[in-house]
Amino acid sequence: MPPFKQLSTWQETVAQLQDHLASSIAPFLPSKPLPSPLPLNVTALPSQYLSESDFTLTSLAPETLIARLASGSLTSAAVTTAFLRRAALASKLTNCITELLPSALTRSAELDAYYKQHGKPIGPLHGLPISVKEHLGLEGLDNNAGYVSWIGNVAPRDALIVDLLKQAGAVIYARTTQPQTLMHLETSSNIYGETVNPYNRKLTAGGSSGGEGALVGMRGSVLGIGTDIGGSIRSPAANCGVYGLRPTSYRLPNEGGIATMLGQEHVVPVIGPLSTSLEGIRIFAKTLVDRKPWLRQPCLLPFPWKEENQLPLGTDGKPRLKVAVLWDDEVVKPHPPILRALREVVGKLKDAPDVEVVTWKPYKHFQAWEIIASLYFADGGKETSAAIEASSEPWRPLSSWIVRENPYAKALSVSEVWDWTMRREAYKAEYAALWNATATGTDENGVPIGMVDVILCPVGPGTAPPLDCARYWGYTAQWNVLDYPALVFPVTQVDPAIDVKEEEYTPRSNGMDEYNYKLYEPETYRDAPVSLQLVGRRYEDEKVIQALEFLKKYITLPL
Amino acid sequence: MPPFKQLSTWQETVAQLQDHLASSIAPFLPSKPLPSPLPLNVTALPSQYLSESDFTLTSLAPETLIARLASGSLTSAAVTTAFLRRAALASKLTNCITELLPSALTRSAELDAYYKQHGKPIGPLHGLPISVKEHLGLEGLDNNAGYVSWIGNVAPRDALIVDLLKQAGAVIYARTTQPQTLMHLETSSNIYGETVNPYNRKLTAGGSSGGEGALVGMRGSVLGIGTDIGGSIRSPAANCGVYGLRPTSYRLPNEGGIATMLGQEHVVPVIGPLSTSLEGIRIFAKTLVDRKPWLRQPCLLPFPWKEENQLPLGTDGKPRLKVAVLWDDEVVKPHPPILRALREVVGKLKDAPDVEVVTWKPYKHFQAWEIIASLYFADGGKETSAAIEASSEPWRPLSSWIVRENPYAKALSVSEVWDWTMRREAYKAEYAALWNATATGTDENGVPIGMVDVILCPVGPGTAPPLDCARYWGYTAQWNVLDYPALVFPVTQVDPAIDVKEEEYTPRSNGMDEYNYKLYEPETYRDAPVSLQLVGRRYEDEKVIQALEFLKKYITLPL
Repeated sequence: MPPFKQLSTWQETVAQLQDHLASSIAPFLPSKPLPSPLPLNVTALPSQYLSESDFTLTSLAPETLIARLASGSLTSAAVTTAFLRRAALASKLTNCITELLPSALTRSAELDAYYKQHGKPIGPLHGLPISVKEHLGLEGLDNNAGYVSWIGNVAPRDALIVDLLKQAGAVIYARTTQPQTLMHLETSSNIYGETVNPYNRKLTAGGSSGGEGALVGMRGSVLGIGTDIGGSIRSPAANCGVYGLRPTSYRLPNEGGIATMLGQEHVVPVIGPLSTSLEGIRIFAKTLVDRKPWLRQPCLLPFPWKEENQLPLGTDGKPRLKVAVLWDDEVVKPHPPILRALREVVGKLKDAPDVEVVTWKPYKHFQAWEIIASLYFADGGKETSAAIEASSEPWRPLSSWIVRENPYAKALSVSEVWDWTMRREAYKAEYAALWNATATGTDENGVPIGMVDVILCPVGPGTAPPLDCARYWGYTAQWNVLDYPALVFPVTQVDPAIDVKEEEYTPRSNGMDEYNYKLYEPETYRDAPVSLQLVGRRYEDEKVIQALEFLKKYITLPL
Repeated sequence: MPPFKQLSTWQETVAQLQDHLASSIAPFLPSKPLPSPLPLNVTALPSQYLSESDFTLTSLAPETLIARLASGSLTSAAVTTAFLRRAALASKLTNCITELLPSALTRSAELDAYYKQHGKPIGPLHGLPISVKEHLGLEGLDNNAGYVSWIGNVAPRDALIVDLLKQAGAVIYARTTQPQTLMHLETSSNIYGETVNPYNRKLTAGGSSGGEGALVGMRGSVLGIGTDIGGSIRSPAANCGVYGLRPTSYRLPNEGGIATMLGQEHVVPVIGPLSTSLEGIRIFAKTLVDRKPWLRQPCLLPFPWKEENQLPLGTDGKPRLKVAVLWDDEVVKPHPPILRALREVVGKLKDAPDVEVVTWKPYKHFQAWEIIASLYFADGGKETSAAIEASSEPWRPLSSWIVRENPYAKALSVSEVWDWTMRREAYKAEYAALWNATATGTDENGVPIGMVDVILCPVGPGTAPPLDCARYWGYTAQWNVLDYPALVFPVTQVDPAIDVKEEEYTPRSNGMDEYNYKLYEPETYRDAPVSLQLVGRRYEDEKVIQALEFLKKYITLPL
């Protein structure tokens, strides 16, 4: 039990947390032994190992749970217990949990009592279980951000987002894994090992919010909190076949999250939801913004969540959408399943009467990577290296790759940071000019109108890769550079019979394309979720969500 | 004529600009010789040296000019010519201009022709002359930001704000002075010398937008563009008795302004208006925001200018206001005229039925100064020093004071910048918590309500001081640290008979208070405008303007 101590070896130190994890999930595990060996795809196991009622409850969408909790037809205790059980099972299958919280049972009972007494919910999330990435502080609990040396750090209070969600009625019941450094698009640490993909355990769940990805992918959570500075919400959402939103910066409260390099604003880290439904994403963001988090975290922007229609209206007064498709960023060509998913979606949209599909030509996406990669570790990785090396834990392969082998991770002077900041802003202006150039005219104020509304694009150069192979961040980090809101949604799954390798392809000479090309063998990726990304302009978070709601008329999504 | 050249001595280099200034104002100067010596207060001279029609035209408020230009009852040529003449005179009296632009006459003729042809204005600022601080680029013109070594740098295009104002119909006719480094609350450079106060030529016009302050104070402009990173709009507005707004960051476009340390985001520089009317301030901001400048400068926030009421409503459905008064920041006590102005205003507001007046206790304002002063020159002043020393121009006293004698101007490592950034954010959160604590309750989302609406406070520790004495920035820089919108407005003038020295006062032991106390001798400040500042929370720019409109029911202001 926390507080944990730094013991004489790092292995002894982490053993405390592993023991705590095991004992925290034990009460919620099924008595029936799990298959041995486990199948590669473990998504069918919950239906076999949970009671019918637990399975049914946990298979509901968050908006359905919220409605039934609010109407009193479900109790929070029943829902919370069901999710604790499914989360415990999910963790045995994918290694996604750092601890389950028995306090959730107390809290859910309190909420049920409140409901009974007042005849109404305490708030818009009354009784809903929500899962949280470990580096977001919970009062009195260990808060290590994936570093062995940080074990024993106890959060003095709940992170702001947790406090606001609790105020809204949420029940915090599960904490989830993250990688060493928080800077992998996978989730492996020396504390908990590797979090694997529910659909194919030889593949990564993605990262850095990979615990959330696997947990939500297993429906052990319908709504979880992740963070994203280069793809860390979107990679696990995409890899695990769920929805995930990287909001524009400074909209949702990330106060109370720990990491190295706090205080750096060159690439603003953001916090956001992963969910089993698109509506879950919307409810999460709206609920938080409605609580005016800027009054407590002043860097946040005091602008309300827009409920009214954000889509342009056609001459018939009905919304219509201009979707630009980015097929390939001209740095690393996406694997066949990604291109198939794009083709399938675009094929349907092209027939839609109120959707116009155009092509988006990528603009110097590798330059965007050079900018962001130079700004990620402006201290040359000093703080990150120190946090790893303060214990004698080994460097994980992807930590080494992004900090020690990354040619852009160089210690900069303050003047050099300003110089890169100027380049970043210049790049953003150039990208904005391209977007403006899609206008069909101008309004009475000289403002361009009729522009592209959203960009549809891959979330990565492939689906979830095998462990330790997620090296190309371009498809997600691009939108961090530009600070555009980006919404990930599941489209299909890899079918080795259809998604054959492109044998004739000659990779581009940048090395990264060849690395990615060689990663693809259809059978390796069997069943892996194939997801896509919908991107809007800065602060068009609401529009991007509405755009996907609109497009769902035409594209049948698995969720 | 530009392009100017770097000549063998700095004196020869600047002589080109002084000659150009003289020849650019010559055509617009009155033929009658000016009094010699000039009186200390030169504000009465325009009525004696301009034609009655020029004097009348230039004495109109910007909103009146806009309305008459839009109705066709005034031509832009007549208005522009009148302002060129009054600006030329203002420059002879206060040294506020770097060049007058003959292109304004061409442009105003074009606008008149447009009006004649189309029977309507080209945009909301049709034909209105607007003045611009020199460091904001104008295509093809010299752009030196007050550094001799930068003379010869020609702006490749108009600054974005200039482009947008021109699109809206404005006529750019005058460029104004700024100090060496842009980091004085005064305006003295080795290129143009010192800009003096129209009301008392022994006092400074303030700075760094002191050319605008003096020009607008002389009604040689009704609307000018300044920039502010520590008080540079508000100090000259206050010193010269006009309105000035430091907007919240990232609302108005500052792209195309040059300065050292571009790319630093630790203390965000902002751009904003100085005007002879409050309505001029509002029109300026709204016109720019209506043009969606964020489409071209992506760091700007895409939120519309709010026209609807932002003030809280009382039970009678009418607006009411809770005003907190900050009398003294507990670091440097304001001079008697400032405290008198506060007392007069507060006295009137206390009698108002729909205004509640409370006291604002300053919270660690000196700590705020330590934070901002440490972040201003995170490179230790390297870029600034280099720009000065690249020519052999001497350091101006206040440049030396803020860069070389400033104990907080130390070269920081990137990690140290992050550390100061964390302190800045922590301070902001603490200040926000104090503001939240003024609430009278919470709404259904748990959000505090009934809080203080605005803070009324001094703009500085005194009125305009004698030259080279503006050393304490706390009353303005405080709101830069917090990134709060701050609106300056004129209240009264110094009357040595009333504003007697407080003989009994024992200054605080910080040195700054004693320095300021000793600066005050009533006669020194005769006629100096006394202004105050109204401050709102972050992004409440519209609310602050509406609050002053509301308060003007009770307080009679000189403008």
